[in-house]
Amino acid sequence: MPAPYASHRAQIKAILRCWGMQEDNAEQTAEILSWADLHGVDSHGMSMLPGYDRLRRNGRIKVDARPSILRESPVSALVDGGGGLGHVPARFAMATAIDKARASGMAAAAVRNSAHFGACGFYTLMAAEAGLIGIACTSASGIQVAPTFGKQPRLGTDPWSFAAPSADGRPFLLDMATTTVAAGRIRNKANENQPTPPGWVLGPDGLPSDDPLIVSKGGSLTSLGGSPEGSSYKGYGLAVMVNILSACLSGSTLITDPMHTKQPQGMDIGHFFMAIDPGLFRDPAEFQAEVARFCGDLRATAPVDPAQPVMVAGDPQRANAAKRMADGIPVGPGLLGQVRQIAQAAGAEWVLD
Amino acid sequence: MPAPYASHRAQIKAILRCWGMQEDNAEQTAEILSWADLHGVDSHGMSMLPGYDRLRRNGRIKVDARPSILRESPVSALVDGGGGLGHVPARFAMATAIDKARASGMAAAAVRNSAHFGACGFYTLMAAEAGLIGIACTSASGIQVAPTFGKQPRLGTDPWSFAAPSADGRPFLLDMATTTVAAGRIRNKANENQPTPPGWVLGPDGLPSDDPLIVSKGGSLTSLGGSPEGSSYKGYGLAVMVNILSACLSGSTLITDPMHTKQPQGMDIGHFFMAIDPGLFRDPAEFQAEVARFCGDLRATAPVDPAQPVMVAGDPQRANAAKRMADGIPVGPGLLGQVRQIAQAAGAEWVLD
Repeated sequence: MPAPYASHRAQIKAILRCWGMQEDNAEQTAEILSWADLHGVDSHGMSMLPGYDRLRRNGRIKVDARPSILRESPVSALVDGGGGLGHVPARFAMATAIDKARASGMAAAAVRNSAHFGACGFYTLMAAEAGLIGIACTSASGIQVAPTFGKQPRLGTDPWSFAAPSADGRPFLLDMATTTVAAGRIRNKANENQPTPPGWVLGPDGLPSDDPLIVSKGGSLTSLGGSPEGSSYKGYGLAVMVNILSACLSGSTLITDPMHTKQPQGMDIGHFFMAIDPGLFRDPAEFQAEVARFCGDLRATAPVDPAQPVMVAGDPQRANAAKRMADGIPVGPGLLGQVRQIAQAAGAEWVLD
Repeated sequence: MPAPYASHRAQIKAILRCWGMQEDNAEQTAEILSWADLHGVDSHGMSMLPGYDRLRRNGRIKVDARPSILRESPVSALVDGGGGLGHVPARFAMATAIDKARASGMAAAAVRNSAHFGACGFYTLMAAEAGLIGIACTSASGIQVAPTFGKQPRLGTDPWSFAAPSADGRPFLLDMATTTVAAGRIRNKANENQPTPPGWVLGPDGLPSDDPLIVSKGGSLTSLGGSPEGSSYKGYGLAVMVNILSACLSGSTLITDPMHTKQPQGMDIGHFFMAIDPGLFRDPAEFQAEVARFCGDLRATAPVDPAQPVMVAGDPQRANAAKRMADGIPVGPGLLGQVRQIAQAAGAEWVLD
């Protein structure tokens, strides 16, 4: 039976605490991971724990790291993640950008020496809930995407998120990998013994494949667009943009650098966050009313299939959150077993049954 | 025979002058349109003149408009385009953002009461040439893109551009419609009596089509991704982001508003520009060296076909510009005939033969 949100979150926190994460940081990290599961972004919530556990046991992340500001101005901050997981420094960086944007109108924060930070959308939603436009992106650890016309993985899923506050309380919330699909959706096809649809993956020769296991055999994910004919140079270009903002600006290790994820101090993943006050340009209430009207107009588009109405980015996540807050958060038996083992090994209380 | 760049630019300027555009504005507009043709973005250069001529003769654009700042702060400006073409206000807005970013570290400018501004990449390149990161986007006049799961066009091609300076003098320059392909590439298929590849267009029922003329029959362009399975919600979401920044922030008319392009004062298209100084975060020379290194690494990716090396956004445009600066700018006989008629009707000198 799906566990209540509170138990799900408490379980994650209990494990993080037993790994040696401080109370405040464990609280925040558990909140961010549970946010992903609550909103249906299952790939970025509890399912990350086995991977984080491996990084921790291999000494690739410092569990009790604390972020610090290396450099700042009224519109900017450069944050050092301290070599730990990315959630706490990412939240700290976006909170810093929000504070500075409230005072200066807009601000950005770049983070280096960090690691996986969960779902991008959590951070842009922080900005939207503060009445600001939010932008967030991050470089990735996994090298699994070939550039257009290339047959060699050089990039990551390199996600981009953009959020804007709306007068109806339903922020616009775009959170997207710059690949055609996330690795998790390909894994799902493999689990179901189904071929991948055209345009999702490439073989080691860089040519289209329908093998959901191809990435583990030297193949790669496609950039959004799926093929040169489908304009994959656009998804590829967006991924480069994400890396320029996240890695080149912050000074973290480039994904194309042989030392990527191999630096002595840790993963050295970089992130980028921005907050913009709409009040710089017009009455913030008018701006929010216009966003609400625009999203409402789009939802009212005549659908292809009346059973599948047109949505706006953020709608599916809100629907998931409402359902899961009521019904609990489903976790498959495979993952649940892994998390139970991790909890046992860490000496953490088990609260999910 | 292709005309030299200088003649091509002079011909455009001569026509704009005879339409009643001021000397300085005609000089700038001709430069921006010729930049597109020089860089191979033929869809956004001289080929726009017939459309601009129609707008002008129908009283939809004020040819002698001048932009003005309605509101500003150390990090922002709201610009009124004055109801004319978009090139001059767009350049003015990006120049303002660049000036403010030099002083404050980062800045944004939103433009309202404008119209088509040519190629997005011209403006972000201004920022990159000033050593800054540039972002530009614009809402569109043509309603031709159905949201994912919709069968009714509600959005435009809604382009996004991002540029970053590079130590090797080859800025990263992404300039992309948020649709799978631009309308021009579909028109090319129609001209060649070829079907459109899968994922480019939808019929009036919102289902996939291969008819390159379908958009004129109630069909629509697809958002980048091409289909729900190819993650078209991402291209759709990027288009909404572009409209939130360009229209909701600036206060120009929403593309979903019945008054879109029908306002008494003119087209009322909105744009958005941003400039960010990398020096906020690290030594600007180190930043530019890292961008150069990253782009170089990507170009060195093993290609699928050795005859088609991996490129980085901006490379194809630079190659076009080098070739066309040497060989002249080709203009097809159909367009050349139209431009000749426009020049004659306007009483403009003909310099292209």
